[in-house]
Amino acid sequence: MDRSILTVPVRKFEGESSSGFQDLLAIEEPLEIRIGDKAISLTMRTPGYDFELAAGFLFTEGILEGSHQILRIRRSETRSNPRQAGNSVTVDLNPDVEVDFERLQRHFYTTSSCGVCGKASIEALHTQGCPVLPKNSPVFESTVIHGLPETLRREQAVFERTGGLHAAALFDSQGNLSLLREDVGRHNAVDKLIGAEMLANRTPLSDKLLLVSGRTSFELVQKALMAGIPILAAVGAPSSLAVETAQRFNMTLLGFVRDHRFNIYSGASRIR
Amino acid sequence: MDRSILTVPVRKFEGESSSGFQDLLAIEEPLEIRIGDKAISLTMRTPGYDFELAAGFLFTEGILEGSHQILRIRRSETRSNPRQAGNSVTVDLNPDVEVDFERLQRHFYTTSSCGVCGKASIEALHTQGCPVLPKNSPVFESTVIHGLPETLRREQAVFERTGGLHAAALFDSQGNLSLLREDVGRHNAVDKLIGAEMLANRTPLSDKLLLVSGRTSFELVQKALMAGIPILAAVGAPSSLAVETAQRFNMTLLGFVRDHRFNIYSGASRIR
Repeated sequence: MDRSILTVPVRKFEGESSSGFQDLLAIEEPLEIRIGDKAISLTMRTPGYDFELAAGFLFTEGILEGSHQILRIRRSETRSNPRQAGNSVTVDLNPDVEVDFERLQRHFYTTSSCGVCGKASIEALHTQGCPVLPKNSPVFESTVIHGLPETLRREQAVFERTGGLHAAALFDSQGNLSLLREDVGRHNAVDKLIGAEMLANRTPLSDKLLLVSGRTSFELVQKALMAGIPILAAVGAPSSLAVETAQRFNMTLLGFVRDHRFNIYSGASRIR
Repeated sequence: MDRSILTVPVRKFEGESSSGFQDLLAIEEPLEIRIGDKAISLTMRTPGYDFELAAGFLFTEGILEGSHQILRIRRSETRSNPRQAGNSVTVDLNPDVEVDFERLQRHFYTTSSCGVCGKASIEALHTQGCPVLPKNSPVFESTVIHGLPETLRREQAVFERTGGLHAAALFDSQGNLSLLREDVGRHNAVDKLIGAEMLANRTPLSDKLLLVSGRTSFELVQKALMAGIPILAAVGAPSSLAVETAQRFNMTLLGFVRDHRFNIYSGASRIR
């Protein structure tokens, strides 16, 4: 059984008539992410690829530097309730790794030290270790970009059935799909994907393009930057701060990638 | 000037040709929400209606019970940087109000006391004071529901120009729009709307329908419940936990409200 989908009875109205049918829902359940004994985060996610999600979250939030710091990832010990058994993941670190848990509070530290604004949020990424990307590399043909949404739709199996999942997909410059992950939360789909690559020691993803199904926020640009991804493309619109952050770090940011059109908001030199 | 929109130069590709134009972006900037001296939350939001957002967030998260607890809402004192001046809001409470700041940590308290699962998340809403809604009231005609998306689109001014904003809109049983708010974050749009109603002493919103532009998550159901809204309708799909939570609290939950169709996932007795 596919744990990311649930079947429920639904009543459907079309115009004046109504009928009953069985609908498919994307599952949303909390996942607790722990480092050793310490609860770090609770995120609402679609079950599946939980180890990758935990690793990816810790990596893209700047808490871990890479897979070499991880001793093992495991289901946390839980009580008897079967529903909760799958909803907590513990990452055990190698004995020599020290985590700066105060970094988890970085939002508040940021505000107290240099004020609350988009610029401060961007500068905080530097402190966190976000790299400024090298310009001009890699280069993607515009015809390759035009073909990506169709590949995403074809591979996005669960969304087709529920309409309820965001997707994140990694492509090479020939337009080949490297990896796809889906989740009710867009940031989770990205963390699952980056976590998988990080655990396989394939980060930084210096020659890849990341395509996301929705809009682009500051948070998504941050996560892509932490993984060294040079091109972020979205089916929807970017926010102002997403564009400003991409420009600051030499990231190529594309929006409205659909219907054989797209806009370049930053880093045009990587598109031919 | 409209502070929720920024104009940027963009290069657009259509098929093989490219051209330059000026695009409109939805602004995303951090907002710090404080109670007195204490920083409570930092959310990425679209500027505008910040006082309503702060009040709404504190209310829908169960930190405040209502406007009677609020002495005043003001811009926080800030340093000289003009960009950050608008990005922090302080809510001053009446002297007799005691806030349970530990409730802010509720996720972790929840996990330690009764495990991590959707059921525990739902039960935590009871502890927070979410009411179980009375059944059967109000009743909305299906023809009224069919007309809501068109009203939303007509009124959703900023989205039309940027494609980057989520909307939350409140309707009465005749299909009249009471209030509309937009934001890069769906939860912020809902908090701005509920905050406005709470500050005007119109909560609980026992006879209203809330329409949101995207999908429905657990978080949105929670926020609507805290405001006593009996019907939550979305243009997109609900998650499994959104449906389960709506059923538990007698909320009517509609999904895929578009093109003269919609699905009822919970509380069918309120739809005729």
